[in-house]
Amino acid sequence: MFNGAEMHKLAKRLWPINRSLTGEGVRQTLQILKEYNCQMNISEVPSGTRCYDWTVPKEWRVKEAYIICPAGNKLCDFQVNNLHLVGYSRPFIGDLPLDKLQEHLFSLPEQPNAIPYVTSYYTDSWGFCISNAQRMNLIKGNYRVVVNTELFDGSLSYGEILIPGIKAQEIFISTYICHPSMANNEISGPVVATFLANWIRGLPKLRYSYRFVFVPETIGSIVYISKHMETLKKNVVAGFNVSCVGDDRAYSYLPSRKGNTISDVAAQHILKWTDKNFIRYSWAERGSDERQYCSPGVDLPIASIMRSKYGEYPEYHTSLDDLERVVTPSGLEGGFSVLKKTIESLESNYYLMATNICEPQLSIRGLSREVSARKNSSKNKLIMDVLTWADGNNSIFEIADNCQCPVWELYEIVDELLQKGLLKKIDGPLLN
Amino acid sequence: MFNGAEMHKLAKRLWPINRSLTGEGVRQTLQILKEYNCQMNISEVPSGTRCYDWTVPKEWRVKEAYIICPAGNKLCDFQVNNLHLVGYSRPFIGDLPLDKLQEHLFSLPEQPNAIPYVTSYYTDSWGFCISNAQRMNLIKGNYRVVVNTELFDGSLSYGEILIPGIKAQEIFISTYICHPSMANNEISGPVVATFLANWIRGLPKLRYSYRFVFVPETIGSIVYISKHMETLKKNVVAGFNVSCVGDDRAYSYLPSRKGNTISDVAAQHILKWTDKNFIRYSWAERGSDERQYCSPGVDLPIASIMRSKYGEYPEYHTSLDDLERVVTPSGLEGGFSVLKKTIESLESNYYLMATNICEPQLSIRGLSREVSARKNSSKNKLIMDVLTWADGNNSIFEIADNCQCPVWELYEIVDELLQKGLLKKIDGPLLN
Amino acid sequence: MFNGAEMHKLAKRLWPINRSLTGEGVRQTLQILKEYNCQMNISEVPSGTRCYDWTVPKEWRVKEAYIICPAGNKLCDFQVNNLHLVGYSRPFIGDLPLDKLQEHLFSLPEQPNAIPYVTSYYTDSWGFCISNAQRMNLIKGNYRVVVNTELFDGSLSYGEILIPGIKAQEIFISTYICHPSMANNEISGPVVATFLANWIRGLPKLRYSYRFVFVPETIGSIVYISKHMETLKKNVVAGFNVSCVGDDRAYSYLPSRKGNTISDVAAQHILKWTDKNFIRYSWAERGSDERQYCSPGVDLPIASIMRSKYGEYPEYHTSLDDLERVVTPSGLEGGFSVLKKTIESLESNYYLMATNICEPQLSIRGLSREVSARKNSSKNKLIMDVLTWADGNNSIFEIADNCQCPVWELYEIVDELLQKGLLKKIDGPLLN
Repeated sequence: MFNGAEMHKLAKRLWPINRSLTGEGVRQTLQILKEYNCQMNISEVPSGTRCYDWTVPKEWRVKEAYIICPAGNKLCDFQVNNLHLVGYSRPFIGDLPLDKLQEHLFSLPEQPNAIPYVTSYYTDSWGFCISNAQRMNLIKGNYRVVVNTELFDGSLSYGEILIPGIKAQEIFISTYICHPSMANNEISGPVVATFLANWIRGLPKLRYSYRFVFVPETIGSIVYISKHMETLKKNVVAGFNVSCVGDDRAYSYLPSRKGNTISDVAAQHILKWTDKNFIRYSWAERGSDERQYCSPGVDLPIASIMRSKYGEYPEYHTSLDDLERVVTPSGLEGGFSVLKKTIESLESNYYLMATNICEPQLSIRGLSREVSARKNSSKNKLIMDVLTWADGNNSIFEIADNCQCPVWELYEIVDELLQKGLLKKIDGPLLN
Repeated sequence: MFNGAEMHKLAKRLWPINRSLTGEGVRQTLQILKEYNCQMNISEVPSGTRCYDWTVPKEWRVKEAYIICPAGNKLCDFQVNNLHLVGYSRPFIGDLPLDKLQEHLFSLPEQPNAIPYVTSYYTDSWGFCISNAQRMNLIKGNYRVVVNTELFDGSLSYGEILIPGIKAQEIFISTYICHPSMANNEISGPVVATFLANWIRGLPKLRYSYRFVFVPETIGSIVYISKHMETLKKNVVAGFNVSCVGDDRAYSYLPSRKGNTISDVAAQHILKWTDKNFIRYSWAERGSDERQYCSPGVDLPIASIMRSKYGEYPEYHTSLDDLERVVTPSGLEGGFSVLKKTIESLESNYYLMATNICEPQLSIRGLSREVSARKNSSKNKLIMDVLTWADGNNSIFEIADNCQCPVWELYEIVDELLQKGLLKKIDGPLLN
Repeated sequence: MFNGAEMHKLAKRLWPINRSLTGEGVRQTLQILKEYNCQMNISEVPSGTRCYDWTVPKEWRVKEAYIICPAGNKLCDFQVNNLHLVGYSRPFIGDLPLDKLQEHLFSLPEQPNAIPYVTSYYTDSWGFCISNAQRMNLIKGNYRVVVNTELFDGSLSYGEILIPGIKAQEIFISTYICHPSMANNEISGPVVATFLANWIRGLPKLRYSYRFVFVPETIGSIVYISKHMETLKKNVVAGFNVSCVGDDRAYSYLPSRKGNTISDVAAQHILKWTDKNFIRYSWAERGSDERQYCSPGVDLPIASIMRSKYGEYPEYHTSLDDLERVVTPSGLEGGFSVLKKTIESLESNYYLMATNICEPQLSIRGLSREVSARKNSSKNKLIMDVLTWADGNNSIFEIADNCQCPVWELYEIVDELLQKGLLKKIDGPLLN
């Protein structure tokens, strides 16, 4: 049910939709995601709403957009690939000679077959994105440009899912829904987040509450923060920005601004035991909504767990970031899996305290071999190591680090020791 | 008087005795040690006494134990080597075919001439330890097994020496007395501890009180803690588990659980200036009574200073751990010496404070050369370095570390500066 | 005006003067420096004044000093080179055979052409310094020795410049004026300090007050401390000992005793961005007045920024430490420049706080490019990095370190952001 093939199927449904900061593409995307999580609440924030330094922009609608070449053939047709049109292009219909047209074209000489992804949200302009190979073939002459778009007072849309747990404390997952047809950045994000929400809702018992938000990047997270600042600061104890979680080439981590929150501890622990070559980025290399969630004054504990990070793989922000060569079922499943393990670790993160003074006698409790020889068995050793570090001051992450094993190797042992009364768990502070 | 030859003599007296958790062997051992420290107090704790999760076991007595081969010859005779009988073997007399006998035999294929050391304290079984070479030669047939042992309500014995100092604060030394004829682990421990107690008692002035305990490993330290928990926690400011201090091949350190107690500071300082290649083990590699002394809730500052650590040398827990090739007079003397230096350093560990504002004028105090040239003499430099670091916040270990020399190079200088009134000592906290 | 050529000119004027702990040479030096800073206050402290462990020595005057060889020629004439006479030589006139004379001669076999620098401040003796080459040529016979010096109750002289700023908090600069004709150690120090004071006085606005002292080394700083202890401890927030700032071969740093004061932070930051190969010495390698300023009980935040450190270059404390091969205009200018940059950084060292919640919208403020492409421009990136770290807890040094650039690259951006109201500055503690 939570396998990569299913995720890849959803990704394919989302692929053709023209998402942007606002508009029908965002709403269609949210409607599809809501099929998977019927509790999703969709909000609309009117254009012109002031949010800190920002204003919700007008809604953008594309009717058609293309260029007619001197020879009469159609070029850069938005119908063929929504990347062709610069995002938020203002309407323009007119004839231009090639040299004037060139000022509105974007291509990547170093990637001649890629259509780049360009936006112009906040300035009054229009443009087309084109492969450099195609651009090189343009001949002198008159080009008819049709940018039949509309900017109008509409709204910005975002989705939100709350899955209540025993505690009001929340783990906050944010992902974004504002890029047209690109796979790792961004379709992988909302797909994995959707499956994660589904998996969490199915768990028999939840310690924490979980809040998922699906927002347009930057303006969407700013809008969300501005409307929920107080409750975010009160409730959110950990969280992750889910982006670029669909390819197979790497695991990556980008810290929260503070770098030492429980989200950072959990993310690094899970990643180092999943892929010892995982890439650690620094806060200097941030680039998604963590910029807002961790900004001074907001300071939420939001880290990022990724596969190949935005800006760091060759297909990034081009038409080459697709669902064939870049994002794969196994890539998505890996992204889902590390996030799942991270959440499991947070659910299991207690401070542990041994109940006995001195070591307990394992042999009378069915926990030990009967005749001692030169070496303890490995499980016995792990039991004794858990008990020795269980002094009430160590979280499960610290105990696992001291035992030099992943947290998940402790879950069964800890349960056994809890059942036998040799250990108790303390719902301590999230970090010492 | 405190030389290795004398220690080796005592070790030889202790060698043949069959020690175990309880029994006459333990008492004989304590009686011999008491000859060296007549203040030793010997306690008996009755079988069945409950101590935390543990119960003092029945006392074990061996009358005879051996196997008669099909050919009539005696094998694994306890009289010949007390390692032949698995410790705490329950009584058994009977005839067994070889394949049934094999289930009760222990040998080490990788060390064909070694008799392994095996115990079965808490389960109802019996067994014999045999060299693998001998085992390979056993032929099919009927074996007569005689395990003429007895388990009865008796007591567990331990010894204790208290040497009072000016302060009630104690330095606690624990060693164990429960292994049959093996030299580094364990005879070296009680031998070196005995000589250390003698040396301490001879010192003209003791700042701290010293408590030595000679206990059977694990159950003995648990019994001791359970009877003295309150005073241990109140008085013990530093301490060491003395084990494996008799061979010549290495110096080793195993930290306390917390790893940063004054015992750890002193042990590491002394060891690094004694043998720059000394081996640092981690708490994960613990294995002796520090497991109890440092367990959560007990948390005494007990570190271990060793030569070759238990479990880390090839003869460990076999008949090859002897007083000829493994434990030597010089090995014992080295073990004694690092413990002695560590205790001297703790006795000298004050926070120092310079009494002058600005540097004092050494030349008017007979502490300096008369004509300055390009370099200060090394002793002058050391004096000035001691004075600059003597700001009341640095212990003698920190000052020595800052001066990049062993503490013992400071003792004379510090005394001279104290006498000249340039320094005063503060009996500060044991650690900042 | 603050260029190396001007500094080198001043150095040449100071070169021939015979400075010592006390005397006319010190006064002449201070008078020349006062020409550059007419606000300099010159103090005289009478011989015999008690200062902590020290007493201001008698004043020393040299009328003439030389040796007449058996052949009648003059040797070691103080008139020719003031290094020839051991500093504070007591008067002596008499005839000596060569072997007795040798007891009063100092030379450097490993540097045969160098006249060493030797002093005998606090013992009743006399001596001459001579090149080893010349010494080797001395023949047997009778030598006439004339040490026509005088020790008398006079005074010790020091200079002081106070440049008031908005705050009473002071940055304290100390340099010394007690060495005869040697260039890097010491003339470079008072020269660079003099130009630094001039430059500071010319600044349009001073946040901190600046105090410069020109004292004989050791006794002078002790005298100064003893007379101003209370105000020093109350006002001094940062400071530097200015010594050996005239050659071209290296940049060096010696920490304050505590090692983590704001002076240390600033010095290390400026040096690492000026010369990535700058040399870090440790407090163990101290040797100038920082010994007093940082001594226990005084504990001022005084670090040292140097070119080639005293004791660490071959010409140190010899006649080879000159104004031709060792100290150069560019060497002095480099020394001046790092101290200037350090002071600029302290003047600019505020805690910064972003005024917006979430990132501001740079595009509407003329701070950003109009059309987003794949990478932000470098300046935009730096603006966003400054804003993300401006959480009120980071000083400008911490922000610059986080941005991986020198502080001086932030000055313009910070000013722009302050003007646009996107940032405010907090006059926080000097160090977190």
